[in-house]
Amino acid sequence: MKKTLLFLSLIMIVCALYSQNILETTKLSETALFKRDFPHIDAQNRAYFSIYAPQAKKVEVTLYHVGKTYEMKKDETGYWYGVTDPIVVGFHYYNFIIDGAEVADPDSKTYNALFGRTSAIEIPEGEEGNYYRPQNVPHGQVRSCYYYSKSNNEYRRCCVYTPAEYESNPEKRYPVLYLQHGMSEDETGWAEQGKMNFIMDNLIASGSCKPMIVVMESGDVAIMLSSNKPPRKEGKSEQLTREMFGATFEPVLLNDVIPMIDKTFRTIPDSEHRAMAGLSWGGRQTFQIALTHLNLFSYIGSFSGAGRISENELKTAYNGVFTDPGSFNKKVKVLFIGIGSEEGPGAKNMSDLLRQNGINNIYFESPGTAHEWLTWRRCLKEFAPKLF
Amino acid sequence: MKKTLLFLSLIMIVCALYSQNILETTKLSETALFKRDFPHIDAQNRAYFSIYAPQAKKVEVTLYHVGKTYEMKKDETGYWYGVTDPIVVGFHYYNFIIDGAEVADPDSKTYNALFGRTSAIEIPEGEEGNYYRPQNVPHGQVRSCYYYSKSNNEYRRCCVYTPAEYESNPEKRYPVLYLQHGMSEDETGWAEQGKMNFIMDNLIASGSCKPMIVVMESGDVAIMLSSNKPPRKEGKSEQLTREMFGATFEPVLLNDVIPMIDKTFRTIPDSEHRAMAGLSWGGRQTFQIALTHLNLFSYIGSFSGAGRISENELKTAYNGVFTDPGSFNKKVKVLFIGIGSEEGPGAKNMSDLLRQNGINNIYFESPGTAHEWLTWRRCLKEFAPKLF
Repeated sequence: MKKTLLFLSLIMIVCALYSQNILETTKLSETALFKRDFPHIDAQNRAYFSIYAPQAKKVEVTLYHVGKTYEMKKDETGYWYGVTDPIVVGFHYYNFIIDGAEVADPDSKTYNALFGRTSAIEIPEGEEGNYYRPQNVPHGQVRSCYYYSKSNNEYRRCCVYTPAEYESNPEKRYPVLYLQHGMSEDETGWAEQGKMNFIMDNLIASGSCKPMIVVMESGDVAIMLSSNKPPRKEGKSEQLTREMFGATFEPVLLNDVIPMIDKTFRTIPDSEHRAMAGLSWGGRQTFQIALTHLNLFSYIGSFSGAGRISENELKTAYNGVFTDPGSFNKKVKVLFIGIGSEEGPGAKNMSDLLRQNGINNIYFESPGTAHEWLTWRRCLKEFAPKLF
Repeated sequence: MKKTLLFLSLIMIVCALYSQNILETTKLSETALFKRDFPHIDAQNRAYFSIYAPQAKKVEVTLYHVGKTYEMKKDETGYWYGVTDPIVVGFHYYNFIIDGAEVADPDSKTYNALFGRTSAIEIPEGEEGNYYRPQNVPHGQVRSCYYYSKSNNEYRRCCVYTPAEYESNPEKRYPVLYLQHGMSEDETGWAEQGKMNFIMDNLIASGSCKPMIVVMESGDVAIMLSSNKPPRKEGKSEQLTREMFGATFEPVLLNDVIPMIDKTFRTIPDSEHRAMAGLSWGGRQTFQIALTHLNLFSYIGSFSGAGRISENELKTAYNGVFTDPGSFNKKVKVLFIGIGSEEGPGAKNMSDLLRQNGINNIYFESPGTAHEWLTWRRCLKEFAPKLF
């Protein structure tokens, strides 16, 4: 009944909207592909989607950040149209579901996430979002570096941000931040979804953060399969959901990536000038790797990190690194714990627990954002100025 | 009737194939996403596709290079399976059509081409394909460079390949090849689809080509819309097909990109050390820009280029550049015309016509390949060693 009402009101909204031309009353999402008409966003931050599917029985658009699916409506030309409720500011993944098939929107840029290549919509901030937009400042480069990983026995790509001044100071050496994406994303996430290069360009240009190299590799996470998919009669898809995500990343980072970076770039190859941070599952990987290798990392950041510590784990977690606060606070210059205000109290509780036990840490809460890239862009903006 | 027969025989093939486990009797396409089971290729180069679409009435897979669409068949778990005829070696774009909606395959990497984000399958060569595969040689970098384009009044990304030795020779300056993609592709095409970085790494390591910088920007081509789509009641999609593709690229390249590159990189900024080449529509852009600016470019390459010259155009084409063969042959060190053997005689005829009229040029034909990336990888492999 509730669903029927929702559907009816949705149809009414859609019809009402198409009596006027929504293309003139709304603005195109910056994630729309070159020369496309959709997706659009209106003044109330409702998103409008469309796809051509003339023979489809049912087309839906699903917004992953709220776990909500909206039915779309077909016009007589075969195009389906749908509109969502107002969406919170930020970068949100979505896909279409066409007669049960979950697919990307042909009108949207796709991002390496969730179901492989996933559509996204950006509900833009106002001027407060300028820190992640390109400005009239010197621009760094994001370099795809190809190398052979002994640990994984394969050629891999690593993305490396170099600050704008890197080329013009051939003698100067730089500190390095190793920055990890979240589960099912990859080495492209921080530049594509996170806009890390513009954030760093703007911070460096304003003098709020030191010029640094930022290294982004894939955490080797396995794909999370759509839970509504049954296992195949053949193949190994189903096993993936039982895999230990990111289990293979530590040797890749420590034995392959860090030596390659220190060999290829003008780094300052010591722990005082090496940081690691990551978001969500990448935050867990950061804790697992950095907290157990304080000889390698002096700055540690967890952005909505999946690595949590409860009171009874405190003495044993990460090889007991928290048992000696004096030594910890001496070795770790910054322990940063960031989270979105809509993500619950877990990160705050961990920060308080650590402080109560003498472990210095910085807690940052992104107002009004959830488990998505706007939270993590803000975390990087807060974290980077505290480095080195 | 013919279609019915095709469909029946297809069902028989599919059933036969799934009585054995095709995942064990075929190999995964290198374009499959991390940890996916499809697409697969068998010993006869037939491709196998699958998608989960439980409520769909009809699912097809369409191979653009042959303009052929294959119906797929659903099993009782809701997965659809399809198999193609044997496919010629090379890199081929495809999509699924689900109840009339043309969408990318959720199991395939997607590429910026044709309909926005398009799936592709690589029918691999044997060892003769090693020139475009990563080898145990020094690897160059592909750098995303962000800059402001006065011509287009926007921030743009340009992809720049730097040879492996670039970092370790801070005094050395390098020649530059400007390399264009085809219609509806973009600045990522040559690295993603074309594997240009591995081709250049291998050529440079073997000493067959000079270390050079390669610059790849987007030709600003408009998206070609699927011809089976009607115009929207609202919006401007339909006009796109009538746009002059790439019309805005010349000022971007000449006034923005080249000055930015010569400022940012250690180039040799003269015509003797500057080349331009492009594939398909990018070949046409190369002729339009380079042949009318011989003061800027001394090496010119057209790979399956859309720019053709007929006998009666010869004296007027490109500001009459061909009217004085002596002067042309003096200024243009290399005019390279490449094509796939399956693309027809147009390029060969143009090469002959030019030679008959005293214009030196090199004709290269890729055996057994059509209008796709394997032809263009081979063209780059032939062209780059002739530069500088």
